[in-house]
Amino acid sequence: MKKRYEGKTKDVYELEDGNFLLKFKDDVTGEDGVFDPGANTVGLTIEGAGRAGLKVTTLFFEKLKERNIPTHYIASDLENTTMTVVPATVFGEGLEVICRYRAVGSFLRRYGKYAEEGQALDSFVEVTLKDDERGDPPISKDALEMLGILTSEEYETLKKLTIDISEVVKEELAKKDIELYDIKLEFGRDKAGDILLIDEISGGNMRAYRKGEYIEPLELEKILTAE
Amino acid sequence: MKKRYEGKTKDVYELEDGNFLLKFKDDVTGEDGVFDPGANTVGLTIEGAGRAGLKVTTLFFEKLKERNIPTHYIASDLENTTMTVVPATVFGEGLEVICRYRAVGSFLRRYGKYAEEGQALDSFVEVTLKDDERGDPPISKDALEMLGILTSEEYETLKKLTIDISEVVKEELAKKDIELYDIKLEFGRDKAGDILLIDEISGGNMRAYRKGEYIEPLELEKILTAE
Repeated sequence: MKKRYEGKTKDVYELEDGNFLLKFKDDVTGEDGVFDPGANTVGLTIEGAGRAGLKVTTLFFEKLKERNIPTHYIASDLENTTMTVVPATVFGEGLEVICRYRAVGSFLRRYGKYAEEGQALDSFVEVTLKDDERGDPPISKDALEMLGILTSEEYETLKKLTIDISEVVKEELAKKDIELYDIKLEFGRDKAGDILLIDEISGGNMRAYRKGEYIEPLELEKILTAE
Repeated sequence: MKKRYEGKTKDVYELEDGNFLLKFKDDVTGEDGVFDPGANTVGLTIEGAGRAGLKVTTLFFEKLKERNIPTHYIASDLENTTMTVVPATVFGEGLEVICRYRAVGSFLRRYGKYAEEGQALDSFVEVTLKDDERGDPPISKDALEMLGILTSEEYETLKKLTIDISEVVKEELAKKDIELYDIKLEFGRDKAGDILLIDEISGGNMRAYRKGEYIEPLELEKILTAE
């Protein structure tokens, strides 16, 4: 088993059958010892964080499987905190696809002239480039096409999948009286070139609220995986 | 004649027949006494700047008229540095529509991971919100539609007009061996709701180069209006 990549919160190994193994770590991103899912550096280690993230991810990937939504997920091993996935390549050097149900965060910072904080948004999808140095800039369909990152057709597939996947997560949260404000997904192409959801869906990928109160990612994971 | 609006570089008056009169001023935007067309404050006064801007604007609006491209332009009075226009309302609180032929400026600052400085772009159109406080953020077609600023159909009209108008300007500059790198336009709706080009097209609206050397807006205006 060969280590292919060492990430901030996950390591990636190549298996003998060609599939990949993701090892979820207890390292979480943050700054000055404070957990911040949007941060670009590892801030601290929290015992059990890797397993909690994997449990939630597995829950959602299983739901998506039931609905025949394409993901890289094959199986999870909670004891060893690993997930087996099909190999996939990212678009360009990596994109994040965001689905928004309420105006908060960077959307509000950009469009606050036209939107109020917390205003309802209708499954609004936007794409940002993974580029720490340039502050993960948002990018339009036209620009993605022109720069050779996505074709126009791939963009539409990505947008539709994002709306469908986010709806599944939103419904799961609603069962626990939690409202999903926004969620950040990652996609890739498999060997055949088909688009599929990759990475993870854990507390750090989304903003969730209960009765107007923000729920921290680790608390959210606890609520979602409670028996 | 009633003053309707006092701008940084132009004042707007309402005429008795319902049309508007734009008075081009010698005030130019900039900071610390240095001319900068992208600045949001009046930096200095340059004698003749208003007339030079009006001359170039008139030249381009006349070209657009010949090609039946809709603009707010009716006539210019160079002696009094005024232009008569049809009244129009802006989209939301104002948009800027940019057409790019080469990757420079804010495009490069955002997408420098995927584009080299000066790389050719194929009439790439993007829209930004006029919002000094939030740094004039770029905004997608979907977001413009969702926030009620433009309909999807209006966006497509705006994009097509931008490409056509920019091509006219590009061709004019090419006659003087000048290459247009990018240009910034403003649009509005007339009383019937039809989309038309508004504001001005002068040196400060574009980036132009000759043999790889950037040409300052006032120098560009001199070259374009030389007999």
